Amino acid sequence: MQIPSTLLEQAVTEFAKLPGIGRKTALRLVLHLLKQEPGQSDLLAAAVTRMRHETRLCQRCYNIADGPLCPICSNPLRKKDLICVVESIRDVIAIENTQQFSGSYHVLGGVISPLDGIGPDQLTIEALLKRIKEEDSKELIFALNATIQGDTTLYYIQKKLQPQAIKITTIARGISFGGELEYADEMTLARSLQHRMPVEQLKL
Amino acid sequence: MQIPSTLLEQAVTEFAKLPGIGRKTALRLVLHLLKQEPGQSDLLAAAVTRMRHETRLCQRCYNIADGPLCPICSNPLRKKDLICVVESIRDVIAIENTQQFSGSYHVLGGVISPLDGIGPDQLTIEALLKRIKEEDSKELIFALNATIQGDTTLYYIQKKLQPQAIKITTIARGISFGGELEYADEMTLARSLQHRMPVEQLKL
Repeated sequence: MQIPSTLLEQAVTEFAKLPGIGRKTALRLVLHLLKQEPGQSDLLAAAVTRMRHETRLCQRCYNIADGPLCPICSNPLRKKDLICVVESIRDVIAIENTQQFSGSYHVLGGVISPLDGIGPDQLTIEALLKRIKEEDSKELIFALNATIQGDTTLYYIQKKLQPQAIKITTIARGISFGGELEYADEMTLARSLQHRMPVEQLKL
Repeated sequence: MQIPSTLLEQAVTEFAKLPGIGRKTALRLVLHLLKQEPGQSDLLAAAVTRMRHETRLCQRCYNIADGPLCPICSNPLRKKDLICVVESIRDVIAIENTQQFSGSYHVLGGVISPLDGIGPDQLTIEALLKRIKEEDSKELIFALNATIQGDTTLYYIQKKLQPQAIKITTIARGISFGGELEYADEMTLARSLQHRMPVEQLKL
């Protein structure tokens, strides 16, 4: 695609580096910005720059933060001794959106995956272990993806914690709400049978 | 969607203002930028700012340009007396990609659409008429969309040009290459019958 302006071309190239955005979509975005007031482009550019340079990771849970602590860690109403271990910031946002969790988080920054060259040292596992000891945490809820890497990470951390008296749980796996049995994969169906629950425990 | 950082939230909001990008997609883009080196975000921000502030419209054809004239108008190999009239910069790029047109362009900036409050004065029609007179153009090819607004614009300009001896044509409408007759809409099929071509004229 030939673009009759070097500056336009550069903007298209930069947008096209973003995931899921090809050159045609990038051109549509750039031409949209060209049609808007210049202030709109300035806002976008400033927001991108500030977001990248001024955000940091929360000292305690490695979630994204504007200051030393993220809003969840600095909220006195959140339970400090209940920690939900997640892979990424995206998972924190997903769980926060359920409005069902009142504890705090720990963002690992990935899962152990030797094939991708990610070992325990690349993740925030040391910080988690130190934090559990210092804060005397009561329960650790693992909310990792149900992959081999996720399970490996869970077992690794569990093993490291063994001498300590802490309750370790993982989020329930099963047929999703509204999901139909006949379309569920065998693994999910098998696990949901294996981890069946007494009906009286269900809060309907 | 609650985002645990005001700076992240602002970046998501700005991305979500772009066409076809919702808040979920915007979040994915922003988290991608967060994972990359800061230089990546700086490049994007700089490209957006420069594109919006330093590009201008070509003095001659109103295409996008980095200087006073666009690369097409400043190219001595392009025929100056053959003008293709289009609605937007996007159409210039589409026609340039065919590599079949060696004339120059005139970007109207829209089509006459009274319902949207767009009259001839909001478009670059005056400049086109002036340019045709000054440059002694030979042919005008209309490549406007086949809508009522496109047709209205074509007739308006044609009428304004009537005293002048200039050839006026419009791009061919018909069944697209690879298109199947049974799926073509009636209007297209009717027009393609009406404007049928002698077989010997086809350059196969």
